[in-house]
Amino acid sequence: MIRIGIMGYGNLAKGVECAIRQNPDMELAAVFTRRNPDAVQILTPNVPVLPAEEVVLWKDRVDVLILCGGSATDLPHMTPELARDFHVIDSFDTHAAIAEHFARVDKVARETGHIALISLGWDPGLFSVNRLYASAVLPQGKDYTFWGKGVSQGHSDAVRRLPGVADCRQYTIPVPEAMERVRSGENPGLTTRQKHTRLCYVVTEPGSDKVALEGAIKTMPNYFADYDTTVEFITPEEMARDHSGLPHGGSVIRSAVTGWEGENRQTIEYKLSLDSNPQFTASVLVTYARAAMRMYARGVIGCQTIFDIAPADLSLHTREELLKTML
Amino acid sequence: MIRIGIMGYGNLAKGVECAIRQNPDMELAAVFTRRNPDAVQILTPNVPVLPAEEVVLWKDRVDVLILCGGSATDLPHMTPELARDFHVIDSFDTHAAIAEHFARVDKVARETGHIALISLGWDPGLFSVNRLYASAVLPQGKDYTFWGKGVSQGHSDAVRRLPGVADCRQYTIPVPEAMERVRSGENPGLTTRQKHTRLCYVVTEPGSDKVALEGAIKTMPNYFADYDTTVEFITPEEMARDHSGLPHGGSVIRSAVTGWEGENRQTIEYKLSLDSNPQFTASVLVTYARAAMRMYARGVIGCQTIFDIAPADLSLHTREELLKTML
Repeated sequence: MIRIGIMGYGNLAKGVECAIRQNPDMELAAVFTRRNPDAVQILTPNVPVLPAEEVVLWKDRVDVLILCGGSATDLPHMTPELARDFHVIDSFDTHAAIAEHFARVDKVARETGHIALISLGWDPGLFSVNRLYASAVLPQGKDYTFWGKGVSQGHSDAVRRLPGVADCRQYTIPVPEAMERVRSGENPGLTTRQKHTRLCYVVTEPGSDKVALEGAIKTMPNYFADYDTTVEFITPEEMARDHSGLPHGGSVIRSAVTGWEGENRQTIEYKLSLDSNPQFTASVLVTYARAAMRMYARGVIGCQTIFDIAPADLSLHTREELLKTML
Repeated sequence: MIRIGIMGYGNLAKGVECAIRQNPDMELAAVFTRRNPDAVQILTPNVPVLPAEEVVLWKDRVDVLILCGGSATDLPHMTPELARDFHVIDSFDTHAAIAEHFARVDKVARETGHIALISLGWDPGLFSVNRLYASAVLPQGKDYTFWGKGVSQGHSDAVRRLPGVADCRQYTIPVPEAMERVRSGENPGLTTRQKHTRLCYVVTEPGSDKVALEGAIKTMPNYFADYDTTVEFITPEEMARDHSGLPHGGSVIRSAVTGWEGENRQTIEYKLSLDSNPQFTASVLVTYARAAMRMYARGVIGCQTIFDIAPADLSLHTREELLKTML
């Protein structure tokens, strides 16, 4: 059995707990939290919830520690720190800072002889590995990534920070016409605005100015100014009833040509339709815990990404079974 | 430069030749044929076409030999024989015999210190690796593979062998309603007949009995009896005008659930839309030649499948570039 420890206990961590239950070769060893452990109720019976600072006492009772902190402030220091004592897995998703994060984690993991898998999930993660496969196999082409329809937590949070907003759920929606143009092999150049629209469901505080709020949202730089954004004001009851889930998904599309003169169009699409974004991300993290243990058993240490991991290391099945049932 | 040799010169081999041209780190060293080499005209200037039996003389001038023979009679003996003197790649696609083929090739390749990648292409190949990723990440679910719309060469050949048939092109077509049921997360049980239909365009010999032919096709065991098949008789001119391409494609869909009680549906779909089936298969073979060289440089020998190959080994880009541009 692979003994998994979970650092943190938010939505992603709960997803990890659920995913462990689906994998017969894994068990949850302990959950570590910065909150008061007595106030944290987990789903798995007879598993301790412990203060985060006690994690190092568990280094002999945890095979892989899955880090469920945020990419903005937690993981940049948490992953290298914990790679000192554990094999670790994170979902660091600030694309522009991944190379730097990799270098920091790799240094510690190599010094201490651990394996660390970073930036796992679906984007970065399964979307990335599909971009790699598709662009390697079809070198003469173009990649497109569309996200949604789904809830963007970063954009929802940005709206929630506005004075007068009680709650917000922001959906990112791919533009169907843009996707069809890409799928048809047209290879269009597409602006940010042409690829996605944004839809905000907003619950206001009593007495707030809805017209002003709508304007403030639609013109918010980085988050909304470059998009066609729709704002709909709803009641707290509607929010609870219609928007309590965290669905997401999207498509990675490679549109390319082959042939002596590039005369044939070839299109690869990888598409996710997810009822629960955090549970899917968690399922990826847990599966890669198996690969981490296998690679470490073969002597692999240091920081590794999804690009470095052979697919066979993910599967519960033996090579013989894989050849017979999946190849 | 990776020097590629091609064994055979049919549609797949021509695709390999075209794909080499799209990869700046590869060059075509020679083409080997069982036909009269003087009668074989290739596309690449200044590359020799040689008799198949001379291939062994080229063992120091070819880094990877790509075997473009058929799975029924060529590859079962060709791949193990040539793995004695070369690193080889094949597209062996008789699913039920892959384990046996693997064992034969592995034995020779290990004895002689070569690397051999077998069963590459899209099914087996990229479809297989997507079945593996999806089923590993989402253990509680079901896999569906749909093929088409596309030309099945095996089925076209089966019809061509009937007396009275001058030519045939057989299209395999997925049933749209079945795909929609799978995509919706319904997890239906589907019979062979419910998943695909078959459409045959047939050119007859003068004086043949079309009614009898249609009956003979529709009731042909293994090939058509289990499907709803449509037969359309066309002229040789229509065949040449409308059916000279070899398009294909299909989807691998994983429909699964996550959550403590399996309460959330998660769907992964990998979809190919190919104007040219042989050119796409060839593009996969050529890309994996790069991986073969990298793995061999690290000391890997023996038979390997797409499951054993880390995605990073496929890419022309350095790890730093991959982290910055694709992760």
